[in-house]
Amino acid sequence: MKKQPQNWKDKLHEVIYEADTRGGKFFDIILLIAILSSVLFVMLESVDDIQLKYGNILNVGEWVLTILFSIEYILRIISIKKPSKYIFSFYGIIDFLSTIPKYLSIFFIGTHSLVALRALRLLRIFRILKLARFIGESNNFIKALKASRAKIAVFLFFVLILCMILGTIMYLIEGGENGFTSIPRSVYWAVVTLTTVGYGDIAPHTPFGQFVASIIMVLGYGIIAVPTGIVTSEMTKIFDVNLNTQSCPNCSHGDHNDDAIYCNHCGSKLHN
Amino acid sequence: MKKQPQNWKDKLHEVIYEADTRGGKFFDIILLIAILSSVLFVMLESVDDIQLKYGNILNVGEWVLTILFSIEYILRIISIKKPSKYIFSFYGIIDFLSTIPKYLSIFFIGTHSLVALRALRLLRIFRILKLARFIGESNNFIKALKASRAKIAVFLFFVLILCMILGTIMYLIEGGENGFTSIPRSVYWAVVTLTTVGYGDIAPHTPFGQFVASIIMVLGYGIIAVPTGIVTSEMTKIFDVNLNTQSCPNCSHGDHNDDAIYCNHCGSKLHN
Amino acid sequence: MKKQPQNWKDKLHEVIYEADTRGGKFFDIILLIAILSSVLFVMLESVDDIQLKYGNILNVGEWVLTILFSIEYILRIISIKKPSKYIFSFYGIIDFLSTIPKYLSIFFIGTHSLVALRALRLLRIFRILKLARFIGESNNFIKALKASRAKIAVFLFFVLILCMILGTIMYLIEGGENGFTSIPRSVYWAVVTLTTVGYGDIAPHTPFGQFVASIIMVLGYGIIAVPTGIVTSEMTKIFDVNLNTQSCPNCSHGDHNDDAIYCNHCGSKLHN
Amino acid sequence: MKKQPQNWKDKLHEVIYEADTRGGKFFDIILLIAILSSVLFVMLESVDDIQLKYGNILNVGEWVLTILFSIEYILRIISIKKPSKYIFSFYGIIDFLSTIPKYLSIFFIGTHSLVALRALRLLRIFRILKLARFIGESNNFIKALKASRAKIAVFLFFVLILCMILGTIMYLIEGGENGFTSIPRSVYWAVVTLTTVGYGDIAPHTPFGQFVASIIMVLGYGIIAVPTGIVTSEMTKIFDVNLNTQSCPNCSHGDHNDDAIYCNHCGSKLHN
Repeated sequence: MKKQPQNWKDKLHEVIYEADTRGGKFFDIILLIAILSSVLFVMLESVDDIQLKYGNILNVGEWVLTILFSIEYILRIISIKKPSKYIFSFYGIIDFLSTIPKYLSIFFIGTHSLVALRALRLLRIFRILKLARFIGESNNFIKALKASRAKIAVFLFFVLILCMILGTIMYLIEGGENGFTSIPRSVYWAVVTLTTVGYGDIAPHTPFGQFVASIIMVLGYGIIAVPTGIVTSEMTKIFDVNLNTQSCPNCSHGDHNDDAIYCNHCGSKLHN
Repeated sequence: MKKQPQNWKDKLHEVIYEADTRGGKFFDIILLIAILSSVLFVMLESVDDIQLKYGNILNVGEWVLTILFSIEYILRIISIKKPSKYIFSFYGIIDFLSTIPKYLSIFFIGTHSLVALRALRLLRIFRILKLARFIGESNNFIKALKASRAKIAVFLFFVLILCMILGTIMYLIEGGENGFTSIPRSVYWAVVTLTTVGYGDIAPHTPFGQFVASIIMVLGYGIIAVPTGIVTSEMTKIFDVNLNTQSCPNCSHGDHNDDAIYCNHCGSKLHN
Repeated sequence: MKKQPQNWKDKLHEVIYEADTRGGKFFDIILLIAILSSVLFVMLESVDDIQLKYGNILNVGEWVLTILFSIEYILRIISIKKPSKYIFSFYGIIDFLSTIPKYLSIFFIGTHSLVALRALRLLRIFRILKLARFIGESNNFIKALKASRAKIAVFLFFVLILCMILGTIMYLIEGGENGFTSIPRSVYWAVVTLTTVGYGDIAPHTPFGQFVASIIMVLGYGIIAVPTGIVTSEMTKIFDVNLNTQSCPNCSHGDHNDDAIYCNHCGSKLHN
Repeated sequence: MKKQPQNWKDKLHEVIYEADTRGGKFFDIILLIAILSSVLFVMLESVDDIQLKYGNILNVGEWVLTILFSIEYILRIISIKKPSKYIFSFYGIIDFLSTIPKYLSIFFIGTHSLVALRALRLLRIFRILKLARFIGESNNFIKALKASRAKIAVFLFFVLILCMILGTIMYLIEGGENGFTSIPRSVYWAVVTLTTVGYGDIAPHTPFGQFVASIIMVLGYGIIAVPTGIVTSEMTKIFDVNLNTQSCPNCSHGDHNDDAIYCNHCGSKLHN
């Protein structure tokens, strides 16, 4: 059983960090809207036409959101028992980095360090990572990804080696006049082709180059199966385990369906 | 055992809503041909050359089909016991929305509200959704999709967050002169690249941009495995369950494991 | 034990239709080389430069191969007991259709029916289907494809309906000036996009069109999982069954590894 | 138990060929950095701007690395008992082929055989294959690929036959004026389309050609499931087997099923 919150700090903690009370749910919805608006503002600001016409409105809205996020940041710090635990957590860093740029923009406004400023302002896009809070940590999906991380890393490493070798071969075959002006560019082309993206900004023109390119494509088409195989077998394993963890109290047979009431091996009743 | 239909309403209901009598099958085939012709007419009408030459023929054919669909709509209403159940069902709304535009076109013909009219006329393409009737609801395929809906939503949400962040980074790296004129446009490019579509209308030109783009492509190539893993493990589960078609002789509950000896619902023995 | 062939017809039958004697293997290798050369000739003939320079050599080579295939065709007919069984089989028809065009070309040489002639000559490319003989019919791979045929057909049908609706929507949004000149063309674009091919010959230019296109791409990226899921679950099923069909002679327990010598359930010896 | 190395040859062997001592680990890290720098140099050398500005630095760095690799090559030969075993192994050949080009460049410097020289120099990119040493041979990932090699070969063979037939059909439909100038080029287009790469350098322009292309794309989208299905079912099998790490206490045979009670090799009881 959960104790009733007793002082304002505990109440605040429940509203901000938890989602199972009325206040907590309301806070989450407001936060969700604020994050999405903020990301929308960053994106619209970068469109020249919109910046010219509605620049002032966007700026005001951005300041309102920045102040709201600042208040949220301060409340999070004062409502937790060990503030350092929050400040140096993943979300604490994201919250800080996505709030500070707007304040910094005051000091840089007179200067001409536009590129640095632009980069700083765009940091606010990372506010979208705050949404990760709403996905939930114990997700099977993330478990499967984590379990197959090492295998996928080996695979991607193998793909990169392949692209380097194939890119070098195509650089030799096609040469600079067909767009394959250097090995790094040819490797870029090999990545574009092997992953089946295929922009077409660089494409082989000689018959032999097209022949080799065809082989690369079919290869890419074939090896796309590998990461899929890895993740699928990992997921099947995880979901199988999660499917049903009960075992019969009489014969200890497992493998029951989720809606099973009686053991399918000995017929005795299951405790659900 | 099924009773013989006794009055014309019941007979009509059987022909229109069911497919296991001779009349019902004939009705379904006529409907199938009418839907496909109608969709073909909508598509051909939009081709300027064909509209100029055969516009009149298409118009006449369209009117014939519209009247046929109107009759079908009315018959469906009068042959069912609770008309409101049909009218507000998915198919009822589709049937209505795909029949009405042609009638509305009479009133709008003199005016110049061409765009609105065009949109209305094109609503008829949704007639193709009537074909869904022929697929069957109890399809394993749709079951697997529904079962993995939540997981796929989380995945697509994750892909969109990734595209927003990657798009913003590329906007900073490449800048407007290489086609990355705004963040929304860069995010569009990131989606085009990560999903391995790769139009090539926007493509990185700076070496560093091409390097980052390569990483995005390999990433997209790797994470395509995730939805596949989800659906596959879901499908394997559903098909596994369906492999066993026995139902309990006592409570007629299905869905037993292959090696089940006792019913998991009532505990009585199964005849294997 | 196999009986020795007794007359020349049986001997011929063994050489042509079977591959387990020395003569049969030799015949298969000659046939393989002839098919591949023939396909190469058809392909080279279509390249203008090569046709101009080496047209005569190609023509002579083509006549030699055609006569060889004719002899093969006649031998196949006379060495089999029921010739009609071969003539109307899949391979019989392929063998006939891919041999006859060269003979017909004599009669058409004076006339100017170039397109018909070209189409006839190109029929010879189907000779490549003769290679199917070397794959083997009892392939698990083809079994899995056949087993999931119905499900994949439902899926492709669903993809086509989706493309028609999405194509119509994009036709409305983008309009003719951006390349979406008619609904069939827009549907073509939707297919190109949803299947992640992405030529870029037609691409959305309006911000809203790019937004809708992004959704289509992510959708296509998500539903590619469906056929994969179907085939994988089908294949896992078939390979599981094929893995090992022996069962223990003592306890009739199945599920042994391929190299198992003793039953893993009761410990008695297995008959391998 | 492992014996202590007794003479300098054994010590050297342990440092170079093994990674479980301090010296061995240090050697591996140095080798890793040297290989990556070397590959980076080859790639940068091919960029004209960098070659002009930093050509001398790259040349010196390349000579330093070449000498280091030469020393490594000689040490590997003298520290192994049977040098021929290393020299003619996969890594021995790679080590030789990737070291020799730099030395050969001295003799060719005066002549104008630039293309041959460039090809030779680029051989050094194969040094990256030395990295394979760090992946580990007993990888499940490589096992799954090897196990499904035959099935994937059949699949790719099938894809190539399909592309040849589809390319020939499109050559007939579209003709030379739309880019489909010859059958080999049309087959190249079919590969680009079926594998969903889609450069867009060649694209159908006639409505009928676009219709056929749409079918090819949907087909390609469907059959991408096949290699995935093969690898996934293979991987699931291998990972399933590996889940069980027990070995028979009598004959130390591994690879038992999870529910095995008796060893499938010698029939003695397993301790579960």
